[in-house]
Amino acid sequence: GALGGLGLALGLWRRHTALAASREDEEDKELRQRFMAPPVSGLRELRRRRRELRSRMELLIMETQAEVCRALAALDPGASFSVDTWERKEGGGGISCVLQDGEVFEKAGVNVSVVSGLLSEEAARQMRSRGKSLKAKDGKLPFCAMGVSSVIHPKNPHVPTMHFNYRYFEIEEADGTKQWWFGGGTDLTPTYLNEEDAVHFHKTLKEACDKHDLKLYPKYKKWCDDYFYIKHRGERRGIGGIFFDDVDSPSKEEVFQFVKSCAKAVVPCYIPIVKKHRHDSFTPEEKLWQQLRRGRYVEFNLVYDRGTKFGLLTPGSRIESILMSLPLTARWEYMHTPPESSKEAEILEVLRNPKDWVH
Amino acid sequence: GALGGLGLALGLWRRHTALAASREDEEDKELRQRFMAPPVSGLRELRRRRRELRSRMELLIMETQAEVCRALAALDPGASFSVDTWERKEGGGGISCVLQDGEVFEKAGVNVSVVSGLLSEEAARQMRSRGKSLKAKDGKLPFCAMGVSSVIHPKNPHVPTMHFNYRYFEIEEADGTKQWWFGGGTDLTPTYLNEEDAVHFHKTLKEACDKHDLKLYPKYKKWCDDYFYIKHRGERRGIGGIFFDDVDSPSKEEVFQFVKSCAKAVVPCYIPIVKKHRHDSFTPEEKLWQQLRRGRYVEFNLVYDRGTKFGLLTPGSRIESILMSLPLTARWEYMHTPPESSKEAEILEVLRNPKDWVH
Repeated sequence: GALGGLGLALGLWRRHTALAASREDEEDKELRQRFMAPPVSGLRELRRRRRELRSRMELLIMETQAEVCRALAALDPGASFSVDTWERKEGGGGISCVLQDGEVFEKAGVNVSVVSGLLSEEAARQMRSRGKSLKAKDGKLPFCAMGVSSVIHPKNPHVPTMHFNYRYFEIEEADGTKQWWFGGGTDLTPTYLNEEDAVHFHKTLKEACDKHDLKLYPKYKKWCDDYFYIKHRGERRGIGGIFFDDVDSPSKEEVFQFVKSCAKAVVPCYIPIVKKHRHDSFTPEEKLWQQLRRGRYVEFNLVYDRGTKFGLLTPGSRIESILMSLPLTARWEYMHTPPESSKEAEILEVLRNPKDWVH
Repeated sequence: GALGGLGLALGLWRRHTALAASREDEEDKELRQRFMAPPVSGLRELRRRRRELRSRMELLIMETQAEVCRALAALDPGASFSVDTWERKEGGGGISCVLQDGEVFEKAGVNVSVVSGLLSEEAARQMRSRGKSLKAKDGKLPFCAMGVSSVIHPKNPHVPTMHFNYRYFEIEEADGTKQWWFGGGTDLTPTYLNEEDAVHFHKTLKEACDKHDLKLYPKYKKWCDDYFYIKHRGERRGIGGIFFDDVDSPSKEEVFQFVKSCAKAVVPCYIPIVKKHRHDSFTPEEKLWQQLRRGRYVEFNLVYDRGTKFGLLTPGSRIESILMSLPLTARWEYMHTPPESSKEAEILEVLRNPKDWVH
């Protein structure tokens, strides 16, 4: 992978020979070709700070973005990703890859952002409210946040929507100590329930977790069901997956390795499901139900999602990249209730009472 | 109007004669026919407490609901309002009138609610955050809230969306004193700018305000522009109107009379605009732009609207009535920007820089 390749290039760097320099140029070229765009921090800077977790995490999110975009584009040959790189005047920037109105995907966005600066008052308040003690110096809290996040809305109502996000956060406190944590997760939102797909999805995530600690999957599966809860509807957004936040133990290195496994599991947990159903036939009624479910997706993201809220509160953040998670189209009908024992009622039942998919 | 009629009936009530009783039955019957459903508090109770502002306000919101529903139904002859009455187990209830998928209106909802009980912790926190000092007794704050609220989403992109809401709030503090205030407003959200319509709308509202105090319209017009601000987009939701909240002076009676004038202005400020444009021809591109603007409407309502937030935070509130404000369909395109000097850019300009419509 790109990370191993970069390690090799970094080793060579020390020799300061013409040969090393040329190999490094090669390596740069290879990475540039592999990634969707040049990394926000620049390849040179990432190389200089190669041992720091921030650099390794930035390479991981870049690689994940490229991997997912390539896998999606391969399934929707007529469409292509638009790639926008953007800068944030307060510090950092990002790369947004969006495929819109394709044959298979209605809207697919894969976004990388690497931002730094001073935490806004609102954002600090939000973090403190979930138990962080942040000692600010003159009210200022320097932070660095990076992550890859993605929402894939397919056209066919038999292909589920998928979301994933892996992120790393650092805050410098008044006394110079750094708080850090990882967060993330991958979850599935089907319009109709397909048990086989649900099992495949959860099993793939469980395998990624189990490599690190057998306790992780059950804990993060439950966290996912709890997090993606549309309280005012009494429903979850989808059939879950894994979700975690504020993870800062056992060690930076171990959490990073776990996050890496999760990121690598995105393609194998989702792409086979898209392949299986992208040509399924569907009725106008099924499309309508999909649109109503899209409405619930919007409700969750705008009312509850912590990432969206944090984004909307961060001055200078790129709104188009944050709201890329919203579907192309959505629908709200007053008092819509599916008939009993219908396929629509079946998925609602699972959204109201989450199931264990892997035993 | 029904209020005058009820006054008459109430006068007769004292005579306790068979004649009075029968006239009163007549009056009840007339009111029942006039309203969309029996009032939440019951006609008998409203009659008993006829001098209290709560009763007079409840009759006003019932009458406003009926007036608006009748005016809308007259313009969309094929469609009709579904009327749902509902009870809240914590106290009170409401009447929701919704017309969906008509010929003229995509979704039109006019909702009355009269709820009472104990303020939730979250709701109290939200009120304190805007400067109210609420002294609770054992953490409990008995409250009563009533209002009429409505959102009308027409099908034709040349007919604007309209929203209004008039409400009254009472909270009993620990020492038994009652805090009370009125809030409300009427505002317009066009897909395309029509200056004549904008002037008519604002002028009608200004006339209603001017009857009470010449300072009200300019103040509440600005409040409206400030309130319906989609901060993350740097745009207002629409071209404004009037908005006010926490109004508790000069006196209960005077504020009530002002609110009554505003409620009576809803039909004359909006219905002529619907009549004028409901048969306008439009292109698929114009419909698409309408759908994108609907997306912004959803963003405002779910991210910023205080009424929606209060509703979602109030235990036992009726979600379908609160989210009735959402359009039937909406759309989000990544990085959509209308061409310069287009009709789409023209309305965006006004949403970014509100204008004075009445001089």
